[in-house]
Amino acid sequence: MEDRIYGTNPVLEALNSQREIDKIFIQEGARHSRLGQIIAAAKKRGIRYTNVSKNKLDELAEGGNHQGVLAFAAMHSYAEVEDIVNLAAERGEKPLIIIAEGLNDPHNLGSIIRTANAAGAHGVIIPKNRSVGLTSTVAKVSAGAIEHTLVARCTNIGACIEKLKDMGLWIVGTALEGSMPIYECDMKGSTAIVIGSEGEGLSRLVREKCDFLVKIPMLGQTESLNASVAAGVIVYEAVRQRVN
Amino acid sequence: MEDRIYGTNPVLEALNSQREIDKIFIQEGARHSRLGQIIAAAKKRGIRYTNVSKNKLDELAEGGNHQGVLAFAAMHSYAEVEDIVNLAAERGEKPLIIIAEGLNDPHNLGSIIRTANAAGAHGVIIPKNRSVGLTSTVAKVSAGAIEHTLVARCTNIGACIEKLKDMGLWIVGTALEGSMPIYECDMKGSTAIVIGSEGEGLSRLVREKCDFLVKIPMLGQTESLNASVAAGVIVYEAVRQRVN
Repeated sequence: MEDRIYGTNPVLEALNSQREIDKIFIQEGARHSRLGQIIAAAKKRGIRYTNVSKNKLDELAEGGNHQGVLAFAAMHSYAEVEDIVNLAAERGEKPLIIIAEGLNDPHNLGSIIRTANAAGAHGVIIPKNRSVGLTSTVAKVSAGAIEHTLVARCTNIGACIEKLKDMGLWIVGTALEGSMPIYECDMKGSTAIVIGSEGEGLSRLVREKCDFLVKIPMLGQTESLNASVAAGVIVYEAVRQRVN
Repeated sequence: MEDRIYGTNPVLEALNSQREIDKIFIQEGARHSRLGQIIAAAKKRGIRYTNVSKNKLDELAEGGNHQGVLAFAAMHSYAEVEDIVNLAAERGEKPLIIIAEGLNDPHNLGSIIRTANAAGAHGVIIPKNRSVGLTSTVAKVSAGAIEHTLVARCTNIGACIEKLKDMGLWIVGTALEGSMPIYECDMKGSTAIVIGSEGEGLSRLVREKCDFLVKIPMLGQTESLNASVAAGVIVYEAVRQRVN
């Protein structure tokens, strides 16, 4: 599921915005100046481009007037962390944010976005690297929630957590070695809940930056919950505290 | 992931137990009397069998002494509903059971089994038909929990619910039209939580048999949670009530 953007102006606009672009196709032999601008902008952002025949471009654009250029753009674009905090302010609510530290499974990220939306959270933050992004599988698994939920990407989750702290949020990490049961952690205030990756949980760096480390009681032989179930259990504990 | 059982006695034992068997392979031309017993038992249970060459059997048995017969058995066998209730009694706890009415996605069933184990629930009940069973994907997604969690299958979920009611359990159904937030439903007593299928939620029949219909607050645009996340949120609300 990708958007196809074609024509010099639309592609240049997309390149100059925060929009994610996977690849650009440029017509072989075409030489006009706007194409030069597009190539320069693509290089600057580190986006791949390839030369293809006019026939190939005609086909990709399904007959549209491509002016020698077409881009594959991610269907969904990312928000900024500030947008998420501002959304809470607009709604007159204390921020409730889910940070997913490094998910590999698009089903987990899609499900977490769906849960975030259902729970009235203001957004989801993921790292730019070592995490699945907003792929078509994530969109599908989110069951439409991706259209209504702000998702931000941070280059450095540690720095992002510091920024959230400066904005007045409490950082609650879920960790096996957390000593406080989730039910005892006050999440009525401005809260960001950090969920670790499927295999390894929270990184040490992130764990050390959390204000609280909480645990979901594990009463059987299983050591942990699926990442998206863990996110659901803890974010809905926050909902319980807030609605009651 | 299937168990391969070979040799006349092991296969006959498996056939006479409650063990799920997918298929039986019998050596072409083999005629001894135990094979006759095996074929009769397979016919009685409606299990398919095929004649294959000795070479094929040797290969399937990886050189083991197969005595002319080999079965593919489900890796995991099912418990009875009574086993689940008895386990609670043995532990001196009020039963906590998850009924998954008709899941199609093995990831959801696997994740629910993992959650059930983590939450200290006594077992999971699924319908015999129109539900994914204990497949290798379910086993994998359960992250080992399948080895420690009783899973029972019922031909008729409605009758099973009546039986649980007779045993003193309260039946809590999760439904969009439920009027009671989960946080207001007392689940400290003997409780079975019913989760509906991914697409359609609870069937009307099951909905009508529930003692309580509860809802997880939906505060965004999303209409529902992923089935395994919903199960996690509600079973951990029961845990919260029980540990506090």
